[in-house]
Amino acid sequence: MLIVGEKINMTRSPVAEAWQARDAGFVARLAREQAEAGAAYIDVNGGVYGEEVECMEWLVSIVQDAVDLPLSIDTTHPGALERALGLVKKTPMVNSVSCEKARREAFLPLLRGRDCKVVALLMSDQGVPKSAQERVHNAEGLMEDLLRQGLDAEQIFIDPCVVPVASDPGAGAAVLEALPLIKQRWPAAHLIAGISNVSYGLPLRGLLNRTFLVMCMAAGLDAAIVDPTDPGIRSAVLAGRAVLGQDPYCTDYLTWFRKGVRG
Amino acid sequence: MLIVGEKINMTRSPVAEAWQARDAGFVARLAREQAEAGAAYIDVNGGVYGEEVECMEWLVSIVQDAVDLPLSIDTTHPGALERALGLVKKTPMVNSVSCEKARREAFLPLLRGRDCKVVALLMSDQGVPKSAQERVHNAEGLMEDLLRQGLDAEQIFIDPCVVPVASDPGAGAAVLEALPLIKQRWPAAHLIAGISNVSYGLPLRGLLNRTFLVMCMAAGLDAAIVDPTDPGIRSAVLAGRAVLGQDPYCTDYLTWFRKGVRG
Repeated sequence: MLIVGEKINMTRSPVAEAWQARDAGFVARLAREQAEAGAAYIDVNGGVYGEEVECMEWLVSIVQDAVDLPLSIDTTHPGALERALGLVKKTPMVNSVSCEKARREAFLPLLRGRDCKVVALLMSDQGVPKSAQERVHNAEGLMEDLLRQGLDAEQIFIDPCVVPVASDPGAGAAVLEALPLIKQRWPAAHLIAGISNVSYGLPLRGLLNRTFLVMCMAAGLDAAIVDPTDPGIRSAVLAGRAVLGQDPYCTDYLTWFRKGVRG
Repeated sequence: MLIVGEKINMTRSPVAEAWQARDAGFVARLAREQAEAGAAYIDVNGGVYGEEVECMEWLVSIVQDAVDLPLSIDTTHPGALERALGLVKKTPMVNSVSCEKARREAFLPLLRGRDCKVVALLMSDQGVPKSAQERVHNAEGLMEDLLRQGLDAEQIFIDPCVVPVASDPGAGAAVLEALPLIKQRWPAAHLIAGISNVSYGLPLRGLLNRTFLVMCMAAGLDAAIVDPTDPGIRSAVLAGRAVLGQDPYCTDYLTWFRKGVRG
């Protein structure tokens, strides 16, 4: 299970305040905390209206100075993506291309021949997909485009687009149904999800997030955009890998138990 | 999600000690605690060698006096089953018939024409099943026998037989693969599992149990033999139902949050 640390995101008020105050130390601490907690990528979202390019540049330089991890460049802004791609020192993850015509047309040329991972988000111009079938349909078109650009399936992380269950009660089940269908169709591609969306608008979000995360792991998810510093997420991933046989003889689970829980 | 409370079981030392001391109050408290925590059935296991019938009779009478719930009669002993069936006041669950020839031959005649639920455990004379396919194969034979006895599929709770991942790393994944295959083959039957077996021999069993439970819920499990008094199990079931759309608009989840967690 590959973890993308989600905490450096301008939709979160402490991060937006750090940008206003140009508090690089705060952002660097968030990067280090997530790296220490086991993140494989640090997501950077610089979505400040009218300042996307400057904000992304600021975040990329701080995080690269703070940690030795690749970045997940989280933006819908072509200029911010281009700037970030010019700055990164390690093979980044582009988060994300989608089925939306404008984003696809702007982003795909930037990816051609580029050494990167790509999140393929199954959102379209019709909005978020409702059913598992709509997700598979959206994936067909987007994967065709990405593979035609010369990307390999191994580079691609398909994101089924998690929607809050508070607004659509069937949203979680539809994602869980879609994951194995997508995996079956493109076995070499990865499956990623922004888990925390599921709990938007509900109390005890950590409980709902870790519950949905382990269900998604059982359905084939191999990467997740989450908060790795949440102890509930860490223990859920370790327990999930143990019961799924992804941690043979529970070596990682037992090591974590001996070190982390019982000192 | 139907919960069968697992705590009154002679393999647990406090319960075995209560039997030795004929401490009916202890057993009654376990029954009441589980009822208050939301159990739909109270499992009674009187597996004391040579005293199965007396012990079962003792447990059944105490639990029926203590709570107004049906019992899950948990035994491999035909005499104990027969005695319990003669004493129960509410439609019980028989836990369990299996694919083992001796148990099947002894138990099936006792079920004919009886108003009861039946757990159909997919263990055979070859031992515990290894793969999902072996589980489906075992279910074929056992379901054929049960339906031939005149039972309806709706009465039957198929138990895929959960094995500790500490002894077989692939055991959890095999159960998760088997559940939807069994449901597809017998859509009217229920799916039940003794979840706690998965964590046998490992530390932090509650964490592993609730992780595996929600994965099984996502795979179609509609009943579980667990400890309903474990707060982690209760919150996992509530969160699991919410993200699976089994609790539309999260009514139960929000009620529990308002009452239970924030006072």
